[in-house]
Amino acid sequence: MPAYRAPLRDMRFVFDEVLDAYATLQSLPTQREFGNDLGGAILEEAAKLAENVLAPLNGPGDKQGCQYDPQSKSVKTPDGFKAAYQQFAEGGWTALACTPEFGGQGLPHVLNMMVEEMVCSANLSLGMYPGLTHGAINALTQHGTREQQEQYLPKLISGEWTGTMCLTEPQCGTDLGLIRTRAVPQADGSYAISGTKIWITGGEQDLVDNIIHLVLAKLPDAPDSVKGISLFLVPKFLEDGSRNPAFCGGLEHKMGIKGSATCVMNFEGAKGWLIGEPNKGLKCMFTMMNSARLMVGMQGLGIAESAYQISLGFAKERLQSRSLSGPKAADKPADPILVHPDVRRMLLRQKVMIEGCRALAYFTGLHLDVAHEHEDAQIRERADDLVQLLTPVVKAFLTDEGHNCSNEGLQVLGGSGFTEDWGIEQLVRDCRITRIYEGTNGIQALDLVGRKLGLGGGRAVRSFFALVEGWLKANPEAPHAAAVGKALKQLQQATLWIASEGMKDPEQAGAASVPYLRLFALTTLAWLWSRMALVAQQKLAAGSSETRFYGAKLKSADFYVARVLTETDSLLAEVQAGKATLMAFAEDEFAA
Amino acid sequence: MPAYRAPLRDMRFVFDEVLDAYATLQSLPTQREFGNDLGGAILEEAAKLAENVLAPLNGPGDKQGCQYDPQSKSVKTPDGFKAAYQQFAEGGWTALACTPEFGGQGLPHVLNMMVEEMVCSANLSLGMYPGLTHGAINALTQHGTREQQEQYLPKLISGEWTGTMCLTEPQCGTDLGLIRTRAVPQADGSYAISGTKIWITGGEQDLVDNIIHLVLAKLPDAPDSVKGISLFLVPKFLEDGSRNPAFCGGLEHKMGIKGSATCVMNFEGAKGWLIGEPNKGLKCMFTMMNSARLMVGMQGLGIAESAYQISLGFAKERLQSRSLSGPKAADKPADPILVHPDVRRMLLRQKVMIEGCRALAYFTGLHLDVAHEHEDAQIRERADDLVQLLTPVVKAFLTDEGHNCSNEGLQVLGGSGFTEDWGIEQLVRDCRITRIYEGTNGIQALDLVGRKLGLGGGRAVRSFFALVEGWLKANPEAPHAAAVGKALKQLQQATLWIASEGMKDPEQAGAASVPYLRLFALTTLAWLWSRMALVAQQKLAAGSSETRFYGAKLKSADFYVARVLTETDSLLAEVQAGKATLMAFAEDEFAA
Repeated sequence: MPAYRAPLRDMRFVFDEVLDAYATLQSLPTQREFGNDLGGAILEEAAKLAENVLAPLNGPGDKQGCQYDPQSKSVKTPDGFKAAYQQFAEGGWTALACTPEFGGQGLPHVLNMMVEEMVCSANLSLGMYPGLTHGAINALTQHGTREQQEQYLPKLISGEWTGTMCLTEPQCGTDLGLIRTRAVPQADGSYAISGTKIWITGGEQDLVDNIIHLVLAKLPDAPDSVKGISLFLVPKFLEDGSRNPAFCGGLEHKMGIKGSATCVMNFEGAKGWLIGEPNKGLKCMFTMMNSARLMVGMQGLGIAESAYQISLGFAKERLQSRSLSGPKAADKPADPILVHPDVRRMLLRQKVMIEGCRALAYFTGLHLDVAHEHEDAQIRERADDLVQLLTPVVKAFLTDEGHNCSNEGLQVLGGSGFTEDWGIEQLVRDCRITRIYEGTNGIQALDLVGRKLGLGGGRAVRSFFALVEGWLKANPEAPHAAAVGKALKQLQQATLWIASEGMKDPEQAGAASVPYLRLFALTTLAWLWSRMALVAQQKLAAGSSETRFYGAKLKSADFYVARVLTETDSLLAEVQAGKATLMAFAEDEFAA
Repeated sequence: MPAYRAPLRDMRFVFDEVLDAYATLQSLPTQREFGNDLGGAILEEAAKLAENVLAPLNGPGDKQGCQYDPQSKSVKTPDGFKAAYQQFAEGGWTALACTPEFGGQGLPHVLNMMVEEMVCSANLSLGMYPGLTHGAINALTQHGTREQQEQYLPKLISGEWTGTMCLTEPQCGTDLGLIRTRAVPQADGSYAISGTKIWITGGEQDLVDNIIHLVLAKLPDAPDSVKGISLFLVPKFLEDGSRNPAFCGGLEHKMGIKGSATCVMNFEGAKGWLIGEPNKGLKCMFTMMNSARLMVGMQGLGIAESAYQISLGFAKERLQSRSLSGPKAADKPADPILVHPDVRRMLLRQKVMIEGCRALAYFTGLHLDVAHEHEDAQIRERADDLVQLLTPVVKAFLTDEGHNCSNEGLQVLGGSGFTEDWGIEQLVRDCRITRIYEGTNGIQALDLVGRKLGLGGGRAVRSFFALVEGWLKANPEAPHAAAVGKALKQLQQATLWIASEGMKDPEQAGAASVPYLRLFALTTLAWLWSRMALVAQQKLAAGSSETRFYGAKLKSADFYVARVLTETDSLLAEVQAGKATLMAFAEDEFAA
């Protein structure tokens, strides 16, 4: 099984050459000094960590899993995880994009996303522990009091402690209005939190000394809906060292991410403190959730990259049958399966999806930095619109493609892929959850059509269309400009359909949502492939010696347009098919 | 987790009402007596076995798996498997469609496929042990000597012994020309077989007293290609009771089907006997393989049905959020998620694929019986053409849809689907191998475009097109006849493209094969949905009281045409995109 190698060359291509990200970042007051040298060095260090420390623990972590001890209610993570986590924290990786005020390095969010891609390629289970901490950091940074920030942020940012997000309960996943966990005000200003939370990543583990739970709960007089939930901070250990009664009641037995402790958490009158305003917990939750959604997208991308490397390595080595156009490795008993057209189809689908998704993710991440830090309010707003619009697309499409690519990769390996020996079946299993958690991909699609298309009265989506149209106008000779234009028209048609039909009847929008999100993503990727091909063309015209790399970009763009983008016709038709055939069924007509 | 219930009503609908199968079968000399009473009773008995005996062992079998003991080189199957297998064998289920001459019941092959669907819905791992025996039975029936048949068939057909298919070696999967296992002639007319085979289902197990291995190997003077392989019969125990040195060297650790023993088999000069002619092993292998491929298709269908039942049960019970058109279960804290359009989309995709695939499978199975038994040679040939043409479609499409449906089903469950509690993640894992074994689905697509389209100079595919066109002409008012006609034209266009381009350059056919097979399947399903809808319409017009059942059929056909068949546009475009963008890549251009 080939060892994971971070795709640094491609990451640089997207970041530096296509997006010109250093120039954009240097226009932000906080990133004036952030240049090629620093960015490149950090990415190389992250690559080493991912390749040498995290990746070797991925397979063993899956096999060993996490162990729960009902006596002590403690959880043991797989061998090696603790040391690797400590190396991660001590290397400052948790702190990378956090505010320097509390010990963070203040580096760009987009850089953090790039690191996250590598971490998730190497070891999703391990990467989730520090990953979840960021939700807690974001919530505290934006909604905590100064005192709360001073008390908790330094140790969360340093990675000395980790954080969790405690949202789900047995009767309540997507619909947070159904939460039953209660918070009763205490005389000292704290709250007594009681209830059961499930699927809590890292709710209990042996990596760190203290765990800071962020818990959604209801105040005694709260309205019985999402307008009645509040966010509380509940540490495992209190300031005086005493154990807060927030105990792990067991671990979930899951299809994948077995090295990640997914806990049932019982809060038995645990001491907690309100974060933000009473009954405004949903807003705080979205603060945690939005950045988490982008990060889950990176998980899908990271896994897809790993799967691609394994399947490409296999296809180059595995000798089986002769090429249909005559032997290619006449000295060997058969040709490498890479010669066969359909094996190439499977590999190239992975390749163009991964490289296209990478461009989409970094494009979004770069706008996240602009949205946070630019001095011009109008530019901030425009960037924030884009990030909001694209966040559900990044989350859903990158994880759907993580699923598709890892399965396509497994298929390249045939029977070998189904065995544990090659590690790719683990990637398929691990990736499966990314389409579900932090809001299922169906919920992402509803977010896109229900909230994001309407953002600012359609401002966000109009501004995105204008961006693509402006680029096409400025680059009419770019490779595949006409195909991008055609896909964009289809997307605009679909958008118009949803705007007019969905306005009259929200179930029309719901029925269209999933194919619409995919149409949105494929169109955006077409645009980014055209941009990437244009850059490659320019580099070659300027006499670059990297003819292999840039030549492959041009060919990949060709493949994407000829054999992937064709899907948009079907998606538009499905959007316009409307809800009729879905809603016609009575409940008892579903069973055969 | 809802218990599996065999979909007997739908099976009867397809078999009896749509295909009018009893009439066709009664026209065969061997099935004159096979009627509704007998067929119905057998299906009901099979349903009981699947629901009550096999299904309860599926989850426990996955968790426990098979154990290998290196000392004794023996394999222990999960608890309960042996007793359930014996019940299966004693019930005569292995013998169902086997020849009465050696103890079989001589019932139709299509009935056997229907039973197989239920068995695989209930417990794929367990079903594989008797399933593989059929390969050995078929090879012996068609290629064995009278003496071999008398010696082995009775105990294989009764299920007292099981059979295996030993094809794959470490260096050789798809490309059987690379086989290294050797067969050296002995003075007594037997052969000494030496070599290593991998991925041998049931190569060793504790269910039965003897295992009959059918082994591909090369004679000393054999040509170095597929023209040099021969088939041998190698029993675990010889007639005198002595142990033949054909030992299990270990078990594969796999993603799924953990209750099925997937063995490495070491043949250490084991005694074997030639089946059929020397160097004609490939022909014998295809005898085993072709019926195995239809059966693997049934595995995909069976798993899809199980996944659908679980996800539908969940969607009816799980309360989460309110319907977009106002509360539907006002007395409850939220509505069942079945009210949401996108949940319906996921469920209905499963439903129409499953019911359409069931029709395709039984249609093919019925022609298998006609091809074997009809008195008129011309009718036999026409039926055999259809079976040969549709076998790769059934194998690949039904397992691809088993994969898609089980994953769509898991998605309906959200986080619950990712846990082991609901059993659906096991279905996803178990199903994954069906797209690979007995020829990967890519190989099926190559078989379709490379062998089957050219069958009899295109006779098979022309006769299939004529069948559909004839039906459309005879039933111009059938629901969705126009949509079927449009899809058929697209399929014919694609077929013409492959015939003309693939003739000049086989890599063009290779590049088109996978989207072409899917286009073929979706078009065939459209035709079958139109047929099913027409029957439903007629039943309702005739005043049937089953308005729910037939009404749902009409709505399902609407859904299929409006939201699934739309994919054909994209598939035709992908077929016609040709090989250029695939073959343009040099080997070193695949890596990023």
